[in-house]
Amino acid sequence: MKLTLAEPKYLKESISIISELVTEAKFKITKTGIELVAMDPANVAMVIFKLLASSFVEYEVESEVRLSLNLNNLKQVLRRAKPNDMITLEVEDNKLNVTLKSKTKRTFSLPIIEMDEREQKIPDLSFPMTITTNSDQLVEAIEDVDIIGESVSFIGERDKFIISAEGDMSKAHIEIPADETTTIVAKADKVKAKYSVEYLKKMMAAGKLVPIVAIQFNKDYPLKLEYKTVDRLMLSFILAPRVENE
Amino acid sequence: MKLTLAEPKYLKESISIISELVTEAKFKITKTGIELVAMDPANVAMVIFKLLASSFVEYEVESEVRLSLNLNNLKQVLRRAKPNDMITLEVEDNKLNVTLKSKTKRTFSLPIIEMDEREQKIPDLSFPMTITTNSDQLVEAIEDVDIIGESVSFIGERDKFIISAEGDMSKAHIEIPADETTTIVAKADKVKAKYSVEYLKKMMAAGKLVPIVAIQFNKDYPLKLEYKTVDRLMLSFILAPRVENE
Amino acid sequence: MKLTLAEPKYLKESISIISELVTEAKFKITKTGIELVAMDPANVAMVIFKLLASSFVEYEVESEVRLSLNLNNLKQVLRRAKPNDMITLEVEDNKLNVTLKSKTKRTFSLPIIEMDEREQKIPDLSFPMTITTNSDQLVEAIEDVDIIGESVSFIGERDKFIISAEGDMSKAHIEIPADETTTIVAKADKVKAKYSVEYLKKMMAAGKLVPIVAIQFNKDYPLKLEYKTVDRLMLSFILAPRVENE
Repeated sequence: MKLTLAEPKYLKESISIISELVTEAKFKITKTGIELVAMDPANVAMVIFKLLASSFVEYEVESEVRLSLNLNNLKQVLRRAKPNDMITLEVEDNKLNVTLKSKTKRTFSLPIIEMDEREQKIPDLSFPMTITTNSDQLVEAIEDVDIIGESVSFIGERDKFIISAEGDMSKAHIEIPADETTTIVAKADKVKAKYSVEYLKKMMAAGKLVPIVAIQFNKDYPLKLEYKTVDRLMLSFILAPRVENE
Repeated sequence: MKLTLAEPKYLKESISIISELVTEAKFKITKTGIELVAMDPANVAMVIFKLLASSFVEYEVESEVRLSLNLNNLKQVLRRAKPNDMITLEVEDNKLNVTLKSKTKRTFSLPIIEMDEREQKIPDLSFPMTITTNSDQLVEAIEDVDIIGESVSFIGERDKFIISAEGDMSKAHIEIPADETTTIVAKADKVKAKYSVEYLKKMMAAGKLVPIVAIQFNKDYPLKLEYKTVDRLMLSFILAPRVENE
Repeated sequence: MKLTLAEPKYLKESISIISELVTEAKFKITKTGIELVAMDPANVAMVIFKLLASSFVEYEVESEVRLSLNLNNLKQVLRRAKPNDMITLEVEDNKLNVTLKSKTKRTFSLPIIEMDEREQKIPDLSFPMTITTNSDQLVEAIEDVDIIGESVSFIGERDKFIISAEGDMSKAHIEIPADETTTIVAKADKVKAKYSVEYLKKMMAAGKLVPIVAIQFNKDYPLKLEYKTVDRLMLSFILAPRVENE
């Protein structure tokens, strides 16, 4: 296996974001790309990552490879990559070799770890509503509610998306109307659900990589955030709901 | 009551500065503007804030309103305002609603708190000397003496303003001559007084908002710093002296 | 004694770097420049600093002056110098007066301390290899190995310079080839030695001041890093080896 990226950004930033949710994970490297599906230790969030073969300048994979790594270690190494470095990934002697090449050649060897865990299955979810908006707009809204409380309500209507939170005394209410930057595809008139702000803050960081996010949710049902760039990257997150006792 | 600001800066930065001195305060909203007069909990510093009605694009006040708020809460909300947001303040159901409007509409509701405290009276002070200088110059000088000690001497003469501090072993001595950026209006030949560096650091932050500061002081007597922009903002501070035992 | 610098940078940054290794030191001020030779408290590293008389706009020294100072105090004062300030150093009443002059005149007085310590002698070292490279390249390499372990191996060959580190499980290996930016002058085919990453991080900070560094080392023998700018500054470091038990 030998994989070379000309642009470190997608791998580097994705691993940095994922490592905030999961510290150890199993990568599956197939002819179509690098994949990772992992649950966070609290079993509240799932991350699904795929970096497509087409984003590599060199992509040699003879047979499917499974590779478990400590993501903090990997993140630290990838952080050392400068924007113009070529990154090569190779497996040798039960190590992953990450080579950063510019004028100098810098090689880091990371241990491949053992993970017994069975493969994570991506749940089959269906949603009554899909809101597609600017990633930055979601970032702003989550930062807004972060000053108020630990959980946030997502309320989808046919013509607007509302994000709101209530603290002991204070409240926040953000209205994003359907317009040229926000589209709402709805099979229901109104959908309302509640999620953890802390997890959302970690997930929405993917807005640095992909300018558009698709948001799907339903009452007492998981949320799905999907960040996608054609032929390159897919980074999506599934988050368990906060069930309201009311 | 409905007040709308087109430019968040003056309100946002003022509240941020004031909240370093006072955590809860009573605003008085009259036909001429929003006012706040408050003492810090240690009774060492007073802050006097006035944002004039003329800095608002919409200013509807039927009768005088008194409104006590936790300034940290208010600061957190105002921090969420971006430079192009319109800010609207309204009172509803014993809450202050702060609306930030750009493409989205974001509303924060803050509790109006109870404050028994009687109204603060602004003391009637008269000074033998007024030094008007660049706000940045005062910032630099206070940062200079901050490395030396906890208190600073302000020494005004007819042709120069001296800021000095003495630590256990070290000393600092800054001389600002009267010139095109610094004017000194003096009824005495020399005035010397001592104040707390820690408080001055919090106060001089108003230099971010207003480029000119008027400095007034007298021996064993309070200091007054006044930051003013015509038709908009007045932010001034009164600071008790450090009386020397010598 | 009266010394004036038109450009604070060399003195300011050098003292800041040296103060990370040594907190008190004796300066020797002669007709040729200001010198300092000091060991760190753990006796692992020596710093040799010389700021030549030719980098001053005014340099009056009648007889040799010895001056012991707390470098943290001096650093704090020099940090207050802005790029366009003129810095003047004078001795008066057992104090060092540092004057920063722009539109204002700011004078700091620092105590001259007592140091019994006998003069540090610079050891007479000879090396089988000298590698001259870009300071930034050394900075990058040390930051690379810093994520792996506490000690680093320097390996010099006739055509390349290798910096490598091994942690419990991970490894880093950086190859810098001899080329237009890196020259290797070797009396031996291969030289390998081991040093502390923590000390190297403090020393390599001199790359901010001087773009080229000369690196000299030998097996179980000290390392020498030399940063030099003609007619101005010489800042060099000697670092004891980490002797390997193998």
